Amino acid sequence: MNDLAQALVDTARLFGERQWCAATGGNFSARVDTAHCLITRSGCDKARLQVEDLITCTLEGAALDTAHRPSAETALHTGLYRLDADIGAVLHTHSMNATVLSRQAGDTLGWHGFEMQKALGNRSHEQRIELPVFDNDQDMDALAARLAEQWPQPGVRQPGFLVRGHGLYAWGRDVDEARRHVEGFEFLFACLLQERLLGLP
Amino acid sequence: MNDLAQALVDTARLFGERQWCAATGGNFSARVDTAHCLITRSGCDKARLQVEDLITCTLEGAALDTAHRPSAETALHTGLYRLDADIGAVLHTHSMNATVLSRQAGDTLGWHGFEMQKALGNRSHEQRIELPVFDNDQDMDALAARLAEQWPQPGVRQPGFLVRGHGLYAWGRDVDEARRHVEGFEFLFACLLQERLLGLP
Amino acid sequence: MNDLAQALVDTARLFGERQWCAATGGNFSARVDTAHCLITRSGCDKARLQVEDLITCTLEGAALDTAHRPSAETALHTGLYRLDADIGAVLHTHSMNATVLSRQAGDTLGWHGFEMQKALGNRSHEQRIELPVFDNDQDMDALAARLAEQWPQPGVRQPGFLVRGHGLYAWGRDVDEARRHVEGFEFLFACLLQERLLGLP
Amino acid sequence: MNDLAQALVDTARLFGERQWCAATGGNFSARVDTAHCLITRSGCDKARLQVEDLITCTLEGAALDTAHRPSAETALHTGLYRLDADIGAVLHTHSMNATVLSRQAGDTLGWHGFEMQKALGNRSHEQRIELPVFDNDQDMDALAARLAEQWPQPGVRQPGFLVRGHGLYAWGRDVDEARRHVEGFEFLFACLLQERLLGLP
Repeated sequence: MNDLAQALVDTARLFGERQWCAATGGNFSARVDTAHCLITRSGCDKARLQVEDLITCTLEGAALDTAHRPSAETALHTGLYRLDADIGAVLHTHSMNATVLSRQAGDTLGWHGFEMQKALGNRSHEQRIELPVFDNDQDMDALAARLAEQWPQPGVRQPGFLVRGHGLYAWGRDVDEARRHVEGFEFLFACLLQERLLGLP
Repeated sequence: MNDLAQALVDTARLFGERQWCAATGGNFSARVDTAHCLITRSGCDKARLQVEDLITCTLEGAALDTAHRPSAETALHTGLYRLDADIGAVLHTHSMNATVLSRQAGDTLGWHGFEMQKALGNRSHEQRIELPVFDNDQDMDALAARLAEQWPQPGVRQPGFLVRGHGLYAWGRDVDEARRHVEGFEFLFACLLQERLLGLP
Repeated sequence: MNDLAQALVDTARLFGERQWCAATGGNFSARVDTAHCLITRSGCDKARLQVEDLITCTLEGAALDTAHRPSAETALHTGLYRLDADIGAVLHTHSMNATVLSRQAGDTLGWHGFEMQKALGNRSHEQRIELPVFDNDQDMDALAARLAEQWPQPGVRQPGFLVRGHGLYAWGRDVDEARRHVEGFEFLFACLLQERLLGLP
Repeated sequence: MNDLAQALVDTARLFGERQWCAATGGNFSARVDTAHCLITRSGCDKARLQVEDLITCTLEGAALDTAHRPSAETALHTGLYRLDADIGAVLHTHSMNATVLSRQAGDTLGWHGFEMQKALGNRSHEQRIELPVFDNDQDMDALAARLAEQWPQPGVRQPGFLVRGHGLYAWGRDVDEARRHVEGFEFLFACLLQERLLGLP
């Protein structure tokens, strides 16, 4: 569990330095076993995250350590672990690009023709990737329920979703894969924002 | 006081690295007791700040250490400490985004629908946050007097203000909260500038 | 070979920190002798690259170490070493600027009047530099064949090419020169994107 | 001289990390005495500069150490030291913002209403600052001669100039003041480019 905690801390600090989770935004978790995950506690600065800032929770969202409150968005993390047994890590970033694009988007944000799509599960740049966009909600249980309703059939790949005006959730089998997915999406957000600024559709 | 000084230095260096206080711009302070604060001395490079660059001042702005001059903007810092006994730290940044947006703004700059507003005291993204914008003035006492005139009633939250073409003042109960407020505002500035570049109102 | 490996690792890490090869994108190689090169293995994070992540390949692209797979784009690297005996290092980056510009470009992307052109072989800013743009292809052998077909006559300088929606290949006599060429092109990409955003032709 | 060399190296590395002198661009010098200066040698990577990369030159531009070539732009540095005995350090950066703006500019680039102007010698944001823009020239002696012709009367402050498509020269009494001037100008370039992108005059 020490390695897992350190991997989460390293990732949070890197993303904190990149300003992808400013002002204590963002939260990060990893599955420990079939019933538990580690998750960042509420209100901590990700660029200065310590192993001590991680809390063990059940997959129903109850903290084992009651001295600290887990992230307010724990229900989305644990909901994802219950939806798919292959998910080993969930990373939620809150970048400027994701925020601005999600506010302009409809139900999805899509890309086509980018080599970077291959980091997100596409076999070729000639495929199309669509990222669902959910309206923001302060009721995390309601948001988790909407996510569960729209969860794809087994075998259909779904590597992330956006919350409007709020940020990205991405995941993977482990912290490294989830980190690659976040980096892939953040790259595609940066490209798409520039293309919008150029006036492209 | 060593911890307090170190917290100010760490924050100044971080903000210096992010180029939020270039060319010796910006200044940073923290309340020491009911009558004194620590403040950065005039003309020092924030990215290389040392504990020795902090000066103890009375809340009327008189430096105890007369070997160095406190920041030219000390009157705004001490004015804030006198206006609200709950203010424990005041951070003034001078970022490109704040400068550009404040030059285009009227009396306030506002946001709605951003999750990040919650870092600044809003309970929900559905509320609205308005940041006052004051015209720049080389007479800091005059600027402090205008700030005092427009200071809200007790109980009304006011987490910061902009000076046109000059930058942001934000504060909090302690250095960490003030730092979160600066990061929250700088994030919202970055988003708003991109939305303006996209031609959004 | 230790110095060569370390020079590749240092360059990969620097470019990784600058987000020029996010999400395990990009790949880097250096010629070891007339028949072999070192190349990054497939799927490693460039910002955390280790000397152990480099693999020795023949210039036909066969890995000597069969425990790891060389980069999927090895054929382009080895193709370049076969095309020009003076090429000592090949660096492929995958930056946002290169991606966005290459998607809008025709067969080439050009610059004129930039002092930075001198870092790329021009004698003066008054010359013109043209960077070929190839359509992306998941078949690396096909892409390498198209590159070989369009390879210039001996004595004509060709310092790099773009793959559409994918990124830059640049090279040099050694890692340092290749690194300077990447930095030069990335600078020119950044300038050109801003000029396009300003509405300039 | 060790302190002076170290101050130049620290500044070059910082500016290198900020990508203000990519691809071995930029050059940096400091006056040693009435007849000599230290200057970066030709073709070195500023982000990895070492004290050994600095060369002692006469103010006529002759290198004392003949093993290395001084920067190709030495004539502009030594010209400035001869024009004004108060100049103790000259820093030439080659940033994206300076390059793009200088290509669109006429004979000068100007700012008004920015607090940052005070870092560059203005007493108030209500003054106006004008930065001369010279056409680029591969003949450095010709460029130095044009600079000398347009040099202001004694007592008129001139803190820098731009070379079109090439970058900024700024200076100060010592390395720290020159560094503050570069940071001030680079901040104003960043603001002005955003204002141009917003369609402002």
